Amino acid sequence: MADERIATPGPLLATIHSPADIRKLTADQLVDLSFELRDYIIDIVSIHGGHFGASLGVVELTVALHHAYNTPDDLLVWDVGHQAYGHKILTGRRENFHTNRKYGGLSGFPKRSESPYDTFGVGHSSTSISAALGMAIGRDHNKEDKHVVAVIGDGSMSAGMAFEAMNNAGAMNSNVLVILNDNRMSIDPNVGALNEYLADITSSGTFNKIRDEVYDMLGHFKAAGDKMRKVASRLEAAMTTALTPGSLFRALGFKYYGPVDGHNVKNLTKTLQDLKKIPGPKLLHVVTVKGKGFAPAEKDQVKWHASGSPFDKVSGASLAVKPTKPSLPKYQDVFADTLIGLAKKDSRIVGITAAMPSGTGLLKMMKEMPERTYDVGIAEQHGVTFAAGLATQGVKPFVAIYSTFMQRAYDQVIHDVCIQKLPVVFCMDRAGLVGADGPTHHGLYDISYMRCVPNVIVAAPMNEVELRDMMYTASNYEDGAFSIRYPRGEVQNFMPEENTPRQIEIGKGECLRQGDQVAVLSFGTIGNQVTDAAHMLEDEGIRIGHYNMRFVKPLDTQLLDEIASTYKSIVTIEDGTKLGGFGSAVTEYIAENHPGISVKIMGVPDQIIEHGSQKELYREAGIDALAVVETVKQQLAKFKVSHLRPTAVHN
Amino acid sequence: MADERIATPGPLLATIHSPADIRKLTADQLVDLSFELRDYIIDIVSIHGGHFGASLGVVELTVALHHAYNTPDDLLVWDVGHQAYGHKILTGRRENFHTNRKYGGLSGFPKRSESPYDTFGVGHSSTSISAALGMAIGRDHNKEDKHVVAVIGDGSMSAGMAFEAMNNAGAMNSNVLVILNDNRMSIDPNVGALNEYLADITSSGTFNKIRDEVYDMLGHFKAAGDKMRKVASRLEAAMTTALTPGSLFRALGFKYYGPVDGHNVKNLTKTLQDLKKIPGPKLLHVVTVKGKGFAPAEKDQVKWHASGSPFDKVSGASLAVKPTKPSLPKYQDVFADTLIGLAKKDSRIVGITAAMPSGTGLLKMMKEMPERTYDVGIAEQHGVTFAAGLATQGVKPFVAIYSTFMQRAYDQVIHDVCIQKLPVVFCMDRAGLVGADGPTHHGLYDISYMRCVPNVIVAAPMNEVELRDMMYTASNYEDGAFSIRYPRGEVQNFMPEENTPRQIEIGKGECLRQGDQVAVLSFGTIGNQVTDAAHMLEDEGIRIGHYNMRFVKPLDTQLLDEIASTYKSIVTIEDGTKLGGFGSAVTEYIAENHPGISVKIMGVPDQIIEHGSQKELYREAGIDALAVVETVKQQLAKFKVSHLRPTAVHN
Repeated sequence: MADERIATPGPLLATIHSPADIRKLTADQLVDLSFELRDYIIDIVSIHGGHFGASLGVVELTVALHHAYNTPDDLLVWDVGHQAYGHKILTGRRENFHTNRKYGGLSGFPKRSESPYDTFGVGHSSTSISAALGMAIGRDHNKEDKHVVAVIGDGSMSAGMAFEAMNNAGAMNSNVLVILNDNRMSIDPNVGALNEYLADITSSGTFNKIRDEVYDMLGHFKAAGDKMRKVASRLEAAMTTALTPGSLFRALGFKYYGPVDGHNVKNLTKTLQDLKKIPGPKLLHVVTVKGKGFAPAEKDQVKWHASGSPFDKVSGASLAVKPTKPSLPKYQDVFADTLIGLAKKDSRIVGITAAMPSGTGLLKMMKEMPERTYDVGIAEQHGVTFAAGLATQGVKPFVAIYSTFMQRAYDQVIHDVCIQKLPVVFCMDRAGLVGADGPTHHGLYDISYMRCVPNVIVAAPMNEVELRDMMYTASNYEDGAFSIRYPRGEVQNFMPEENTPRQIEIGKGECLRQGDQVAVLSFGTIGNQVTDAAHMLEDEGIRIGHYNMRFVKPLDTQLLDEIASTYKSIVTIEDGTKLGGFGSAVTEYIAENHPGISVKIMGVPDQIIEHGSQKELYREAGIDALAVVETVKQQLAKFKVSHLRPTAVHN
Repeated sequence: MADERIATPGPLLATIHSPADIRKLTADQLVDLSFELRDYIIDIVSIHGGHFGASLGVVELTVALHHAYNTPDDLLVWDVGHQAYGHKILTGRRENFHTNRKYGGLSGFPKRSESPYDTFGVGHSSTSISAALGMAIGRDHNKEDKHVVAVIGDGSMSAGMAFEAMNNAGAMNSNVLVILNDNRMSIDPNVGALNEYLADITSSGTFNKIRDEVYDMLGHFKAAGDKMRKVASRLEAAMTTALTPGSLFRALGFKYYGPVDGHNVKNLTKTLQDLKKIPGPKLLHVVTVKGKGFAPAEKDQVKWHASGSPFDKVSGASLAVKPTKPSLPKYQDVFADTLIGLAKKDSRIVGITAAMPSGTGLLKMMKEMPERTYDVGIAEQHGVTFAAGLATQGVKPFVAIYSTFMQRAYDQVIHDVCIQKLPVVFCMDRAGLVGADGPTHHGLYDISYMRCVPNVIVAAPMNEVELRDMMYTASNYEDGAFSIRYPRGEVQNFMPEENTPRQIEIGKGECLRQGDQVAVLSFGTIGNQVTDAAHMLEDEGIRIGHYNMRFVKPLDTQLLDEIASTYKSIVTIEDGTKLGGFGSAVTEYIAENHPGISVKIMGVPDQIIEHGSQKELYREAGIDALAVVETVKQQLAKFKVSHLRPTAVHN
């Protein structure tokens, strides 16, 4: 049943059609607008779901930015983009905002093709300073006059890429403002020394108080003798660079301002106006509360990072229709339970993630075995090489990182793990089309980018039992890396309760169903679509073979020989790009060893697939059961034609 | 003519067979050993070539480390590894050291399979802290008691990965020592704000002097009244954290020590012994001179980073045999000259590199057009997204990064450039087997990892004229990214003098030679091996077809249709992995559209190829002219067999 609630903007928000309208408002009106914007975000997310806490935290900052700067001529870059709902609502997209994250609707992240106000597409963290510096240098190159502002969270700041950008910006001395939105959270609470450092700056005024006291003393000295005065003046200079907060940023060549209250829109607006006059690279440290203004979200920031279903906008109580049957566990649950089970029996095993403990399920292990679980923060590069270091000491690390984020650690996978043949296990969550998060988060390239590297097993389970068995098999594998990919979402069936992990023979697939003429070879959970397709085809009297190949590397060439000797045509299917992945592996072998057998690759086409529900996207990409049915029929039709042809020639 | 000079170790060095021998020496003997080690490195590199400056800079540090720590039980990780010659010579490899970087000989970098003293294989920069932290946590996990030390240069410290590791180590509080080897240089002079910050710490004692003055004053206060005393004591505490050098590292949770003179071996040894008693994460800042003790290298550190040929060990004068004919230019020269030429005509064009200005040739543009050339430092991730930001402003960035280092920016290529379809040009130098640098530096995966991503043209020129034409074509391309890969080393011919760049039709290959039965399709400069092979085969009366495909994406399917209708068998060749690259692209198309035509993929096999000369490695990998000849003959032999078979059946 569709939710019939409608989000209605407040009277002032209703008049805001673009940021130009904001720039006409008085300071008091900015306060009102902020209230109304916050209400509107709560309203609309309570009806339609979506990311949440981050946007509530930057309501005042968003209003202040569009007031102080002449967007879109001045360029605003939002890091990650979770927090850009207010920005979207204020930049002409309020009336479409109910389509947010829906198929064909607005993207959940800033996106260049969606609006000129979205200067840079985001989704992964920590890109904003690099992009903003590029824009700033581009502006200088074009001899233009405009402001460039990046807004980045403290979590994103911990990624190496942000540091590289700061280090470079500090040296280039171009005019750019970085706003550090310090809410102590990314999706999960932040970890790392930087986080403690920021807490030091902002807590209990220690820094500011000492500074004030020192300046007091300096006053006394100046009244004193000549030598004292000299020392005092040198000391004052040193204070400015060292005893004020932000010396870390200062060391990187940035002027540091703050910390300021990120919920005081009047003061923010004034501060931003002041900063416009200051040239060069500068950082404004803004302190905000994630989920600000919505009590349940302020209280449990992890839970309210995003909401997938409707809720009561006052109490936060879920309004989702209760499912009539108990819901299935997720692959993430199976991953976590299996890893904990394995770790209990094998003391070498540890779990690692990079700021994804709740998303990957590793949180459960973190709670149960805190001393054997490591969250390295938004730092995939470090996380993978850290795992390599552990592996040199005989520890067996399971690294849980989403497929899309493993891209960040690609060199570390190659250079630190695979070249050295170290036994690190990669558990690549969110493989395939992820749904509402869209193109920045789809896990489509990992089969190709892993397969081309030596010394790594490339595996994908077809169901939860196989995931568990593959993890067990990986835990016993010492001859290099072992990567396992699996999707987000529910498993196929409930896991049998009493079911100990089984060793799977590495590089061996299995025949699930024998058939005539066409064999469909699947890799991973997409194989369940083939099972459905086989049933549909059977109803029409067509019997296909179905092989669950399990491994792309090593490839089961013995099974391929059998298949090639039994069928006329092979169809492969994977929930990854068609280029260079599972289908290619099969094709490479068949084209060399069994020319004459045609191979048709089903996979995600070589184009960007936007957001929507997973079901909609699998349909669009042409990799669901229906598409298998169609493809098999096309292959069969080809045979009929080609059977006729030789006959015609002979006549 | 072979160089007949022999490097002879000094009397003390001759007695050092392992670090255990070093630990028996007196402090004075350590000084002598350092002298002898430095002499030996100069001797041996003057005869055999190799990396140079970095190892001379850490002679005393190397001796001190092996004296102070109980290696290999205590774990020593060298970042990058250029600087580990002394380490290798002292750890039982002196007598083999003349095989350094030669085929079958010692690796130019630390390598786990080579020695238990090489705890972690390196080659790319900035991995050492992550690896060391992994080892330290592994030690804690195993409840062992040993020291872990990472030695990292100031250049490597600017990469984001090092920052991620520091940030994580600072929070984890495990016992680990990071030695910052500060020589102000990576291969090229370092850039970035961090570099200036380090210069501030070490220059002219500003920090130390202020600190001393402040402590003086504090003394006076303590004698004064009660309120003053309180302030003074709080001030003192603040001083300790803020006014001492190293507050940047302190902010990341490290205890900071230094700066100390890296050429005083006695003092270094004592400092290291002291630091062994201090728990937790700590950083020792050591100041060294790259090339120390060899005057020409101290004077020109870029030139003497490495020496490819023998030289006089006093004057530095080259002893290489003068070539009888003028040597050909390098692909790097053609790249640089072309880019400068294009930039002169197209004001949108800028050049970007990541600490590789001399290696890529971009240095030439940097000198000629400094305001349009950007070296972002060891920061590939930032460099690529910086380019994306520039592209949003209508600037046309050419990003020159080695194939192997582009792995570091893989997510940025996908997420920031390709998903957004931004016109960034990637010039991937050092594609293929690079030679003496070995497995960490081979550029073997780029065809596969680029091809699987949407919105990027994947191209490779067969020669210098095509490189120039492709760069020109890329400069006019607005519909997404454009990647061009080319090898290190000399071009095929001299570039014609008067030769303006031509537009190449994107996605079109060319027929170089028509033949019978077998067509060889090549991608990139490896095609010249096919040309040679075609001549050799012609001498035996075999005529092969040869097609220079130029583009893997888009693939010239029209040409493939033609080829499939003309030949019985296709052989593809590329100087990259066999898995997922050019050969796969051809195979994917042929297996679907022309089943019956066999495709044999020639490329680098799915295994680690070690170091050696490029020629030796191309032979080993099976992708030289001789290998093409053999493969073609094998294909032809297959036809004979398969021709016979049907006849036999009919009989």
